[in-house]
This record gives sequence, C-alpha cells and structure tokens, in this order.
Amino acid sequence: MDNNAIGVFDSGLGGLTAVRELNKILPNENIIYFGDTARIPYGSRSRNTVLRYANEDIEFLRKHDIKMIIAACGTVSSVIGDISDIDGIPFTGVLIPASRSACNATKNGRIGIIGTPATIRSGSFKKTVEAMRPGTQVFANPCPLFVHLVENGYIDRQNKVTKLVAEEYLEPIKKAGVDTLILGCTHYPIIKEIITDYMGDNVTLIDTGAESAKYAKKCLSEKNLLSGSTEKGKNTFYVSDSTELFGDTARIFLGHDVSGDVFSSIK
Amino acid sequence: MDNNAIGVFDSGLGGLTAVRELNKILPNENIIYFGDTARIPYGSRSRNTVLRYANEDIEFLRKHDIKMIIAACGTVSSVIGDISDIDGIPFTGVLIPASRSACNATKNGRIGIIGTPATIRSGSFKKTVEAMRPGTQVFANPCPLFVHLVENGYIDRQNKVTKLVAEEYLEPIKKAGVDTLILGCTHYPIIKEIITDYMGDNVTLIDTGAESAKYAKKCLSEKNLLSGSTEKGKNTFYVSDSTELFGDTARIFLGHDVSGDVFSSIK
Repeated sequence: MDNNAIGVFDSGLGGLTAVRELNKILPNENIIYFGDTARIPYGSRSRNTVLRYANEDIEFLRKHDIKMIIAACGTVSSVIGDISDIDGIPFTGVLIPASRSACNATKNGRIGIIGTPATIRSGSFKKTVEAMRPGTQVFANPCPLFVHLVENGYIDRQNKVTKLVAEEYLEPIKKAGVDTLILGCTHYPIIKEIITDYMGDNVTLIDTGAESAKYAKKCLSEKNLLSGSTEKGKNTFYVSDSTELFGDTARIFLGHDVSGDVFSSIK
Repeated sequence: MDNNAIGVFDSGLGGLTAVRELNKILPNENIIYFGDTARIPYGSRSRNTVLRYANEDIEFLRKHDIKMIIAACGTVSSVIGDISDIDGIPFTGVLIPASRSACNATKNGRIGIIGTPATIRSGSFKKTVEAMRPGTQVFANPCPLFVHLVENGYIDRQNKVTKLVAEEYLEPIKKAGVDTLILGCTHYPIIKEIITDYMGDNVTLIDTGAESAKYAKKCLSEKNLLSGSTEKGKNTFYVSDSTELFGDTARIFLGHDVSGDVFSSIK
C-alpha cells in the first residue's frame, strides 16, 4: 500500500475529466493535478514542442510525492506513445486504456477517432487499435476547433456554432459507419451530447479521461499501490497561468464546484 | 541613418500583417520577425503571463542588431500600454497608432473596438481613445474565437461558422451605431470581408498591423533612423515552434509567398 498521491497532468483543464472519475472510483486517493494553462493548446503544436512541454510537466509533478503519473491529455499520450513507467514510476496516458475500451466495445469492427491535429497526425490511436484488434477499420479526423469551443463555453447542446463545426468534423466518420468513436481529447466529453445528437445513439463514445482513470485503478491495484487510507482523499490543483479563472472553467470539466486547493506553478 | 533591422514580434503570425505593410512603405529596410508560435494564443492568458512572454520576446529580438521594436500584437500592446522606448530603443505597439487613426476617421464620435479577452479586459484602447478625443463613445467586445478561426483557415468570405461567430460578436457594436471599428488584433484583417459584410460598407475598419507600420515609418523618419540602403531589404523570420508549417500560414497574413529565411528560435 502507498499513500502518495496520483499525479495527473494535461495541457489545460481537460484532464479534470480524469480527476472526476478518479474521485469517484478511488475516493480515498490524494490527487495532484497540473494543468499547463499558460501554454494550452498543445494539439496545434509540433511533435517536438509537445514532447518538450510534456517532459516539463512530468518534471513538475515529480517534485511532489507521487506513486503514478497519468497523462490525461490525448495529444501528449499520442506523442509519447505506449510506455508503462517513467524512471520506475508507473505511467499511463489515454492511448492504451481508450483503445482497449474501443476494441471491446465495437461489434462491426469499425472505429472512429477524433482528436487534435497533433494526435491524428501521430497515427498512434490507429496503430494501437489495429495492433490490439487486427482487421479493425479505423477512421480518424482532426477537430482543431473543438478545444477552443469548449474552453470558451460553446458547450450547450443547442449551440449553433458547435453543432455546425461538429457536423463538418464528424461527417466522414459517420459516413464510414463506425459503431464506436474514441473521443481522443479530454475536452471532448464536455460536448458529448452534441456529438451523440449527430452520430446517433447507437454509436458508443469512449471517454478517454474516464478510461485512463479506470486503467490507473487496475494498475495500482495489481502493483499493490492503492492507498491504505480510509479518509476521503484530497485534490490539489496547480496551473501555470493565473489561478483566477480556474474555478469557472474547472467546474465545466469536474461537473461540480472545485473542492481542493489551487496554486500557480509560477514562482 | 541606420541600417540595422526593424524588429517585429507577435504571439504568432498575425504580426505579419505589419511586415506586409512595412515591406510596402519601407522597401529598403531589413526586418527581423519573431512569432511565438509555441505559446500562441496570448489573448486568453492573464496579464502577468502576457507581460512575461512579451519580455522574453523582446529579449530575443534584442539579441539581433535592431533599431526599433514593434509589438505587432493587440494583446501585448494593450498590456504593455503607452511606452515609446525600451532601454533607449524606439518602441511602438498597435495601441497608439490604431487609436489615433480611429479618432481621425470617426465622424459621429462612436468607435467600436474588438480584440482578445486580455485586450478588452485591459481597457487600454478605450482609455487611449477617450483621452485622445474626449467625448468619444467607445464600445468594446472580446472575440475569443476569431484568432482560432483565422489560424485554422476559416477565412473564406462565405464561411458559415465564421459568419455566425462574427454576427454574435459584432451585434452589440453594430447596434451601438459606430462608424469606425478598431480591429484590435493583428489576426482580424484576414476576415475583414466577413466583418464588413456584417457591419456595412459605411463603417471604417482600422487595421492595427498596418497602422503600426505607418507609425514606425514616421517615428524612424523623425529620429533620422531610416535605412540609407538603396537595395531591397531582407526579411528574416523566427518562430518558437517548428518552422515546418510556417509557409502555409504565413501566406495568409503576408498575402503572398514568404520571401526570406525562416528559423526556429529553439536551440
């Protein structure tokens, strides 16, 4: 048993969708979250810049007492690829958990993947799914504006702008007849109603943040690293930009008011 | 006379609208441009983070032989405010040139200002215009999605998404009956047709990038710092992210293919 915290990071606040699930399925664990809000978005940047930022995020988390690292960011996960530890600390991104879940869910062997330009360009989800379930047909499309629409609150189910953009991005995926769609960016579950309204109820959506949390539970359990505490765990949030606007945006991703301390990582 | 280069910087490539004008009105000047493409957008960040980034951008330019610095970025200009030199090097943002031009253009004394959230929150354009032309009524509205729409190529005059978003952002400004509109971000001239189609031909649009270039010419001339060269000047471009995607996006802002060398500022 290990009472150290689980470290979670993302380019911004999308990774809070993983924290939300962790709080639900591992209520006694402490969480340390880092959101790189001074440099979001990662998804429109080059591979090398994403890697550099991810390494700095991991370095920041490792200054704390952590027993596992979760990259709750589709872009980072795609660029880093399939690794299971960082210098001996168990690690997961969203790539393996979400791909596994999609392979289990599909019946017709046709899986769609949407993500940031960097995620889709990396081809990581496609390669992973095809390796896990040979013969699967994968249809991928980048959705560069989704992150910005979510960050700017264009999330209402009836929002005309987001519906129009969703239609444009999802049309080729829908036409391909997928029965499963990986939301390859932790921002996308926030607009899942709009995505479902277009794709139809019969398409299973895979929430990458939630899947990474479930995978982390399994991983910590297998390694006997779950917390021995019987008290409710504590969330601690760090952001690289000002903490001022954190609360309003965080509520969107957490689904409730923030409980926990919020700090800026800048000295 | 001074044959050093004019240094121009922006959060990304929007500042190339200033370079375009500089090349036109000062064809013999050398330009050194820095676009912080690894950290764009600035407009959604806090004041302190914008200031920190701007100082680092200026520090980068000052490693070269430059005789003037232009912050061709509405967000940086608004946050830095009205300063005319940096350690003795002549400086201009877009704030003073664009405000002056708007005050000269208005007939009914009603001026609109659109910009990033950080620009509008700073109140700098409003204060400057009101000080320059007392009695002017100023109507400001933030347009957080415009930068992302432009960066992602949603710039065609008939683009449904951009037209819808423009309508939402511009409605209160149009209702206020302005006859002059400051495009307070160097990305916005790229969608000026869409803005004009909504606002009407009788509203004068102020292009901040172009105004800052004209102001720089006047400033260099007054200080006797114009180039003595009779040869065509050279453009040198630096970006903080990969140079790979520079050409395609730069063409949007320059209005023609890039002529000049392109380097990454990352070692």
